[in-house]
This record gives sequence, C-alpha cells and structure tokens, in this order.
Amino acid sequence: MLHPDRLFPSDPTQRAIARRLYGEVAALPIVSPHGHTDPSWFAQNEAFPDPASLFVKPDHYAFRMLYSQGIPLEQLGVPRKDGGETSTDSRAIWRLLASNWHLFRGTPTSMWLTHAFETVFGVTERLSAASADRIYDQIEECLRKPEYRPRALFERFNLEVLATTESPLDPLVHHKAIRESGWKGRVITAFRPDPVVDPEFEGFRDNLAELARITGKDTATWDGYLAALADRRLYFKSYGATSTDHGHPTAATADLARPEAEKLFDIVRRGGATAEESELFRAQMLTEMARMSLEDGLVMQIHPGSFRNHNDVVFQRFGRDKGADIPSGTEYVRALKPLLDRFGNERDLTIILFTLDEDSYSRELAPLAGHYPALRVGPAWWFHDSPEGMRRYREMITETAGFYNTVGFNDDTRAFCSIPARHDVSRRVDCSFLARLVSEHRMEEDEAADLAVDLAYRLAKNAYKL
Amino acid sequence: MLHPDRLFPSDPTQRAIARRLYGEVAALPIVSPHGHTDPSWFAQNEAFPDPASLFVKPDHYAFRMLYSQGIPLEQLGVPRKDGGETSTDSRAIWRLLASNWHLFRGTPTSMWLTHAFETVFGVTERLSAASADRIYDQIEECLRKPEYRPRALFERFNLEVLATTESPLDPLVHHKAIRESGWKGRVITAFRPDPVVDPEFEGFRDNLAELARITGKDTATWDGYLAALADRRLYFKSYGATSTDHGHPTAATADLARPEAEKLFDIVRRGGATAEESELFRAQMLTEMARMSLEDGLVMQIHPGSFRNHNDVVFQRFGRDKGADIPSGTEYVRALKPLLDRFGNERDLTIILFTLDEDSYSRELAPLAGHYPALRVGPAWWFHDSPEGMRRYREMITETAGFYNTVGFNDDTRAFCSIPARHDVSRRVDCSFLARLVSEHRMEEDEAADLAVDLAYRLAKNAYKL
Amino acid sequence: MLHPDRLFPSDPTQRAIARRLYGEVAALPIVSPHGHTDPSWFAQNEAFPDPASLFVKPDHYAFRMLYSQGIPLEQLGVPRKDGGETSTDSRAIWRLLASNWHLFRGTPTSMWLTHAFETVFGVTERLSAASADRIYDQIEECLRKPEYRPRALFERFNLEVLATTESPLDPLVHHKAIRESGWKGRVITAFRPDPVVDPEFEGFRDNLAELARITGKDTATWDGYLAALADRRLYFKSYGATSTDHGHPTAATADLARPEAEKLFDIVRRGGATAEESELFRAQMLTEMARMSLEDGLVMQIHPGSFRNHNDVVFQRFGRDKGADIPSGTEYVRALKPLLDRFGNERDLTIILFTLDEDSYSRELAPLAGHYPALRVGPAWWFHDSPEGMRRYREMITETAGFYNTVGFNDDTRAFCSIPARHDVSRRVDCSFLARLVSEHRMEEDEAADLAVDLAYRLAKNAYKL
Repeated sequence: MLHPDRLFPSDPTQRAIARRLYGEVAALPIVSPHGHTDPSWFAQNEAFPDPASLFVKPDHYAFRMLYSQGIPLEQLGVPRKDGGETSTDSRAIWRLLASNWHLFRGTPTSMWLTHAFETVFGVTERLSAASADRIYDQIEECLRKPEYRPRALFERFNLEVLATTESPLDPLVHHKAIRESGWKGRVITAFRPDPVVDPEFEGFRDNLAELARITGKDTATWDGYLAALADRRLYFKSYGATSTDHGHPTAATADLARPEAEKLFDIVRRGGATAEESELFRAQMLTEMARMSLEDGLVMQIHPGSFRNHNDVVFQRFGRDKGADIPSGTEYVRALKPLLDRFGNERDLTIILFTLDEDSYSRELAPLAGHYPALRVGPAWWFHDSPEGMRRYREMITETAGFYNTVGFNDDTRAFCSIPARHDVSRRVDCSFLARLVSEHRMEEDEAADLAVDLAYRLAKNAYKL
Repeated sequence: MLHPDRLFPSDPTQRAIARRLYGEVAALPIVSPHGHTDPSWFAQNEAFPDPASLFVKPDHYAFRMLYSQGIPLEQLGVPRKDGGETSTDSRAIWRLLASNWHLFRGTPTSMWLTHAFETVFGVTERLSAASADRIYDQIEECLRKPEYRPRALFERFNLEVLATTESPLDPLVHHKAIRESGWKGRVITAFRPDPVVDPEFEGFRDNLAELARITGKDTATWDGYLAALADRRLYFKSYGATSTDHGHPTAATADLARPEAEKLFDIVRRGGATAEESELFRAQMLTEMARMSLEDGLVMQIHPGSFRNHNDVVFQRFGRDKGADIPSGTEYVRALKPLLDRFGNERDLTIILFTLDEDSYSRELAPLAGHYPALRVGPAWWFHDSPEGMRRYREMITETAGFYNTVGFNDDTRAFCSIPARHDVSRRVDCSFLARLVSEHRMEEDEAADLAVDLAYRLAKNAYKL
Repeated sequence: MLHPDRLFPSDPTQRAIARRLYGEVAALPIVSPHGHTDPSWFAQNEAFPDPASLFVKPDHYAFRMLYSQGIPLEQLGVPRKDGGETSTDSRAIWRLLASNWHLFRGTPTSMWLTHAFETVFGVTERLSAASADRIYDQIEECLRKPEYRPRALFERFNLEVLATTESPLDPLVHHKAIRESGWKGRVITAFRPDPVVDPEFEGFRDNLAELARITGKDTATWDGYLAALADRRLYFKSYGATSTDHGHPTAATADLARPEAEKLFDIVRRGGATAEESELFRAQMLTEMARMSLEDGLVMQIHPGSFRNHNDVVFQRFGRDKGADIPSGTEYVRALKPLLDRFGNERDLTIILFTLDEDSYSRELAPLAGHYPALRVGPAWWFHDSPEGMRRYREMITETAGFYNTVGFNDDTRAFCSIPARHDVSRRVDCSFLARLVSEHRMEEDEAADLAVDLAYRLAKNAYKL
C-alpha cells in the first residue's frame, strides 16, 4: 500500500531529485522535541491492549471525522467524563473505523494509519468493512508479542529522543521510573505551565495551592509564585526538559511594572478575575517565562490561537481534547511587542512561535522571525501537519525567513505509532519542496542535500538543545 | 476553441489520470441545487431575445470587468433603476464586449462564455472586434429556433434538477405554471428569507406587512411572525424546495431567551433598530431558521461576508447585484457558537457554510465541519468559483474535513448558458486535484474514481436531499 | 551560476512555453516607476566605494537575515543614529555575508545578489567563506572602472525610466543636477508626502514650518496647507513626477465636511492629536490627495499595512528602514469606502493599491479593482516581491481582476544593482504563470505572448503615464 515514491511530485525531473534527497534523510534517527505521548507507556512497558485502544479511542483526528459524519463518540469508545456508558467492544469500534475508511480519503490520518498498519504491523491490504476483522486480528496478534511493547517500538522507530509534555504539578514519576529502570531510551519531559498560569484553566486556584505544596513556596505572593515556577522549571530540567510550552488562546504578551503585576496576581489568585484580567495575566506570564528562559536556558514554545472545547455538549460529556478545538484568527505583531521590546534582541533566548492561522506565515511570522534574534518559527502545526499544510508552510515562510529561522519538525502526537509516519511525511514533503527549487534552478542540489538533513534532523536538535 | 484537455495538469502522468477520472463524470446529469436563474424562463419558455441580453446585460461578472476599465454601465445596457437612459442597441453592446475581450484573459468568465459559444451555439472562432458581428449573427439566428428555447436548453444541458431562489413574499407563480404545464423539467425553488429577516433590507417593514397578508398571520407579534415564516417554508417545500438560503453580512448567530427575542423583534418591526440591533436580530433569526429546519427538514445554507452595494453611486443608479458586492473578512468560530451550542450536534440537521474569505477554509470551516455533525462546507463561491479558487478550496479543506464534509458543486448563476460550463470546470478541476493525489500515491485510482462521481453528482444530491 | 531556465517550471511542456514567452520580453527596456534609489548617484556619478557598501550596509533584506541569526548590526556596518561605533571594515563585513550565505538559501536575496554578482561583475563562483576574498577583490576592481559608475550602469541596465521617491520638503537638487548635466538617463521623482501629512511622523510640526518656508504658503491654515501641497506636487511634476506615494499604517480614508477637516487640521498642526485624530487626519489626507490627483493627473499609490520600526531598540540605535518593519493585517473594503464614494467612479483617476497582507488579494483587492474604474492593484510588494509571492499574486488576483487591472512590476528597491535581477525574476515568474495557463488550455499562446509584453513593459508605462 505504501508506494516508495509517495508524496513526491509526479514530474520526472522533480521526482528524481526528491528521491535522491530523501535517500539522504530516510534513515536518520527521529528527534521528537514536542509531543503528547504517555510516559507511563515507557515506564511500565505494558502491551497495548488492542487495535481500537491503540488507533481509535485516543486519536482525536480519527474520531472527530467519524463524529462529524454522525457517529456518536460513545460508539467509538471515547470515555465519558460524566460517567455515562461508552462502548468497550473494541472489535465493534474497529469495524466502525473500517467501514467508514472512505471518509479519510485525502487526509493525513489515512496516511499515518496506513503507514503504521504496514510498517509496524505488516498489514498489506486496505482497511474496509471486508478486511476489518482480518486486520484487527493481525494487529492484535502482534500486540501480544514482546517486540510490540512500547520500549521495543521506541527502539524500532529509531527515536533518538522523545519529549512528552507535563503540567508543573506532575511529579514526573514515570520519567523517574524510566530513568531508574536503566533503559537507554531518551524520554524527556517539557514544562507546560497552562494549569498554573492561566486563570481560566479548570481548577486554577487549587492548582496554585498544589504548586505551593509541591515546592514549599508561598504561592499567595507574586514573588513566591514566581519562585515556585522557577523551582519547577529546574525540576523539569533535571528530568531532561529543554523546553517550555504555552497553549494560550492568543499571542498576547505584556510587560507590566512590578506593582501592577503584583496587583493583578492578587486579583487572579483570589479567583475573581474578569476575562480581560485573565488575558492580561496570561500575557504577563509569557514575558515572565521568557525572563526565566533567559536564566535557565529552556527554549520557549508559544502555541496560540486554538479556541479550546468549542463544543460545549462534547466538553461536558467527554472533557478536553476531543477534537472540538477550533483555530481562530491570531495576531502576532502587536501581541508580541511587549515581550519583544524586552527580550526580542536577546541572542541567548529562543522563542518558537506556532500558528493555526496560516495567513500569519507570510504576513507576520516570517517577517518577525526573519528579523528578531530571539524568534524562530515552529513547524506547520496540528491541522496543518499534512502534505498540503507543510507545502504551504515552506512556500510562505522560506522567502522571508529562510530555512534557518525554522526548527525542523514536531510530531505533536498522542498516537505513538504515528510518529514514524509523521516524520516520514515531513521528510518527503520537505524533500519535494527542495526538489522543486532545484528543478527550477533556484538552488543547487548540494545545497538542497545539506538542507534536507538540516530540516529532518539538525535544526530540531539545535533549536531544542537536544 | 475548447481543448479536450483543458484545465488538466500538463504533467503527462497527472493528465492521463485526470482524463480517465473525467471520463467517468463528463456525461453525468447536472444537479444544480443553488442558483439564481429566472423561473419565468421555464414557465413561459419564450426565446431569449438576443446575444447581449443573454450574455452581457444580466451578467455582473461580464459588465463589472468592462466597467472597471472605464466603460459606463449605460453603454452596456444595464437597466437604470432611476429611469435614466441606457443603451438598447444590443449589437453595439456586443461589440463592446468583443473589442474588450482581452480584459477577460485568464478569468473564468472567458472560459464560461467560450464554452457556451462553442457547445451551445457552435461558434468556432475567438471573440474579437473583427469577429463580433459574425458571432452575434450566428447566436441570434440560433436563438430564433425552438431548440434554443429555455426548456429545450434545460433538457440539452442534461439538468436533472435546477433550484432557483425566491423571497418568502414570492407567490411562486412561475413554479406553479411549470408544474401545471406538464413539462418534466425539475425546476424547484429555494427559500431566501433575507427580505423579511434582515431589518436593514430595503422595505423590511412593508415586507412584514406583505408576509402577514400572504399568510394570514399576525406578523406584529413574535409568535405570529415565526408562524408566518414556518408557513411560507412549507409553501416553498410544496414547490420542491429542499433548502433555505441566508445572505447575511456576517456569520453572527444568537440564541436569545424568549423575552429578549420578543423585545428585540418589537424594536425591529417598528423600524427603529440600531445597526447592532439589526445584526443581533439577523443572528437570532439564523438560530430560529435552524430550529425550523430541524422540524421541516429544509437544508440550511449560510452565505455570509459580502459587503453588498459597496458602490453607492452605482447602487443609486442601477440598484442591487451590479458587480459592486465586495467580500470582506468573515469570522465563523465565535460567530456560529450560539447556534452550534444549540444545534451543532444534531445529526438530522444540515447547515452548509459558504465563505468569500478563503482564509477561513483551513482555519475555521474545515475544522468546524470536520467535527460538528450538523455542518458541511459549501463549494468555492462567487469570486472563487474558478479553477484557481476551486483548487485552493480542495487543497485547504480536504486534509481536515475530508471530501465527505463537502457538498459537491453549486453554479450559483443568473447566466443560464453558463451552467454546463461551470459544472464542467468544476468536474475538470476536481478530477485534476484527484489526479495529483493519485500521481503522488496519496490515494489509489479506484478511490479517486469513486470520489469523482461523488464530487460531480452524489454529494450534491445527498446533501441537498434531491 | 545563473541557469538560463531558472524559475521556469520543470514540466517540459510548460518550460518550453515559458522559454518562448520569456524570449519575447527578456530584452525589453526596464520601466521602474517606483523605487528608492538615491538620485545623488546619478547626479554626481561617483564610483560606489566597495562591495559591502554596495551590497550589505544599505540592504535591509541582507542585514535583517544576518541580524535574525544573532549577528549585531554594528558588525555589518549599519550606521548608528546615536553615534555609537559601527564597523567600517568592509572586507570583514563582506566575509560575514559570505560565511553566512547558506542563510539565504531559497530567498530572493540570494537570487538578486547572485544575478548582480554574475551579470554585473562577472563572478562565476558561489559566495562562501572560501570564495569571499576573491569575489570581494573582483567586485572592488570593477568598481574602480568608469563603466561601473552609476550612469554607465543605468544605461547598461537598459533603464528606460527610473523613479526615485522624495519628501515634499526635498529641494530635488539632485534631479535638477541630473537635468542640467545633459545626461540622457531619465531619472524622475515621486511625491511622498508622509512627513507632512502624517501627524505621527518624526518632526511633523517642523515639517509643516519648512513646507511653509519653501512654498510661501501659510501652513497654519487648512487652505494654505492644501495650497502648499498642491504647489509642491506641481514642483515635483516639473521634475518628471507622474505619481504620489502614501505609506500609511492602514488604508483608512475619510471625507470630512470642510469645517470638521479644518478643525482637525487645527488640532493636528498644534501637535496635540490623539492616535485616533492622527489616523483620521491621514485618512482625510488620502481623499485630499485623490482630489488633487484628479486635478494634476498624478497617479496615486497607497502602500498601507506596515508596522514601521517595530523593534524599539533597533529604532533608537539605528533609525528607520532597518529591517524591522513588520506587515500586519490590512482591511480595505470599509477603509477605502469614503474615498471611493467620492472618487471611485472617476475614469481619469488612477489609484494603485498595494498590500503586505496576501489575504486581501482575492478577498478585497481583486474584487475592488475588478469593479471600480479608479482602482488598480499594484504588484506583489516587499516581502512578496519573490517567486512564490509573485505566483500567489497572479493566482489570487487574475481570476477576479484580470491582468489589465494590474500595473506591471515595481522593483521598489534601494539596491541599485538588484534592479535588473528583480525585473528579470518578475518576467520569468509571469511567463511561467502564463505558460501554465497555456499548457492547461486556459489561454492561447498568442494571447500569452501579448500579455507577457504587457506585464513586463506596457502596463507599467501606461498605468504610471510614463
């Protein structure tokens, strides 16, 4: 099912170049600096239970499409937050995916799943109602074998390093267990402070209390709160973290005078903040985080512009991350100015900007990153982590920011088996883009070959200090 | 003039696939679920008077381009609302089109007209000052023949169904006449309530009075007004309508509590509404219409984002729909939330979203339609109903929403003879897009062949319940 | 290093057509109606001092990229406004460019520089740390020769006309000197009134005083101020100006009643205007300028949407135009309405709209220019003056506005030696776009050949009345 030339341009000149470039990068180790796999997999190394639990239930790309066509999430085994009933019949769930496989035509989900089916599990026929049970059985049989345990797959996937993402309140027990197990796989954490810096996050006040408990700092004062965060950053660093990650609704930043910041914190920690005050507090915290990054060296990632939990019914019933996060227009030029006025010219700081608003590529992000020493543009993200999305990204970023103000690829996934597929798509699309430039004599092939390795491996390693 | 490979990619691999795919759909009947042809043509079946009256005077695509280059609309025979003089010399109007034919190079208008000239009227030379009279004579001669009457053309165009668009105040006499004539052509209406749900529509208060008169309901009360609308929807349904259509300036929706809605209606019906109140009323009415759709099964189309009648001088002199409607940025994610909170998870409701703001394809519409069961994305619309526009549409929609959250093609035209041309362009562009996916091994050719028929025929039929 | 097929599509069918079309335009004279070269070069005709002074220090495209990767502007010889030290070691500056040449891979800067190195200075090896000194020496040797003086290069570049841009306060001594020198090169000025119409421009009040001094008008009154501007426009016209240029932060226009305008001017000239009042004054002045253009025939260019001097540290230290101008979202449809209501239907007025916000191409600019007689769309600008940028421009503009509502190419450059390179890129990209249309049978080749000359030469000449 996987053609060796997949994703390469059909033009023979370009395809020949793309093949050669891809040949340089196909076997490189995977550097995965940003993602959402579960560290307990690698700590406990237990077998994945069954195909539906591996490929459907946890993958919002898969179940959002099925849901959009009228299949209830309960039938897809998505666990209910409210305790309501949900299917536990994995084979039935799998059959639903199989009989609706046509819905995924032309989507990256179909490419990722097909890649995993074939390269990981040896499946050689297309998923369909007719083949559903055969493929289910084949994958399930594999999953019982030791070579399909998480650590074995990690090694087989040629993962040089894999970052997970945790809340500052997470004790990192799994990362500790991995370290103490003696296993050589490099699984590191990343510091995601949203639960303790976003006043609108569920349980924010309790989270501050928990932060105090963990760190022994007084999080009822501005200084104590900042000290607690600095403390947790160092703790995360001790478990390999090289980066922080900030999932704010907008890219707003602020640089308040100390008394104003203190006063705002006081309002926020008491729980009575207005929407504007919450936004201002998040904005201020991005600048505080940048300041701390300059001190402790953690690379800062800003992931703005998602309207989280847009579907209220789904949120109440199933909770977060259920395919109902919708991008919205995101402004960077005015939003980032306070932070950039303070830290934009720092050469020892790296802030990686992501967007879900592709308009901002050529209009805002490339011009900003093509000027400010502290800024880099993160890869095509989420809905745009796809062949067309990646192509647009290169076409709109490169001419203004070049390649070296970008940072390689992020797989950003919860779906472990999709990691090799996603990096492979990225490598193929980048090689195809470079092949076009070479074929149009906009670059020599030796330059493209050097760049191919940068884009597939070196840029991520350097930008994330891995 | 029409090359059999027009609009196919020049790459031989892709072109060969595109040809094969197009071969599967070229002869399929045309399903036209949304458009603005005049039902009196089919009711009365009179000959079209002359080439200028058929191709120039009613086609804002044609005369806006000529106007933009300094040719007065009066010289193009566009009727003046203010009673001022306008050209009635059809041959002179035609010569203006012909001698400015170069202005249309690279535009869909040139493709549509060329297609109609050649396939409908047998014209085989390019329009120019030199050929103007010959082509005029040739078309005029055809128009005198019975086989060029509207019903004969309808049949020759292989139209399976054609929807027109009418105001709730329209008595649908032409649809009645068509039905009673015994002619088999399926011409149905669609329910376009803007004149009675938009407080800023010309004559809104008079329109409410007329609505009362027609339905016998008391449109001075909120309940009576809603009942009158529900009543007219059923009347339209009885003339074949399967859809409603809403041409609001924005996508704003609201879900007011009943007392608030009643109060707002009271302000609005008295004629003293502010711009904000008018906007809120339109927003509320979208949610009311969705509620009624859930009851009567009419598919709901939302066409927001056109700044209507932007050119005040042209509006005063010539009225609506004179090529002076200009798109503007349109936000969907926040705008639709009130409606979606109430009805977004309904599997028995279909809301088709259109846009003139291509940014919203990948950022808002595809993510929304790829999640909410009630949502679908309408085809590339108006200025984007063009080869490049359709290509961008597929490239930006497909990876997130797939093909099955789209609804096939709408020709959306007032220009009857352009209908086959427009559907042909759509089929060719979709087949070319699919051919690229096949050539890049992102899909198998059998899947593409199945999809080609879906995109050309089945999706429209299913989505619009035709 | 320059391949004869560079920038042409690799598909053999398209490439063959592109070659033929380019053959028609490659040798056409260059019409450069908008740019920022220094007229003193042509007045004084002195040798350019050295490679770094020619290619690095004045080129914000070059030094912004190097700065973004951590190289201080001082090391690149960019002069400090605050009198601080900056490198004067041209060879060291050159080596910095050379050893970081990989940063420019895939950027237009690399194409422009390579084109100038090879076609102007005969360089035949790639710039690198290893070749830096050799190339430096070769260019420096050339620069000492008379045939590398500005006037000789002007002639060699086949420049039919070159427009510079000056403030109304500029006495145009260099243009006067050029005229009086008897040299035949046509170097004209363009009227850029930002310093005297933008209340937020540095030194605005002093500028008004200077305007009074130069013109003898009383710029403390609204009438006197307008008369002074009309006066300077005529003075500029006498030095060949055919256009004005307006670099506002937004596209806002206004059409205030006379007493309001007078009152606003009174606030503004006293220096106490709020941000809103300044914006309104700029908006009013665009409409005043359009009125004057209708009187004196100067073509009006509006260049909105750049957030100037975004980096405060860089602005304080180095001043304007240091690569820190960042585009931002720009709205046209509502913004231009007041001006268009007054003058949009004038056939004797030409207003050329530019954008840094590519979204506006298909959504706003093409629909506006495809309707209003007074409007044209300017070429892809600044960050979008690049192969991908130009391609997107044609793809998004053409189907709605056609080719004839565009105005050819602007090089818009301060880098004299990049002028032939930039026009060559534009010609190649346009021919490639046309070749695709021909190869897809969307246009005949004779039409494309005619258009190629229009796009490369005639449209600029006509639109700018040159």
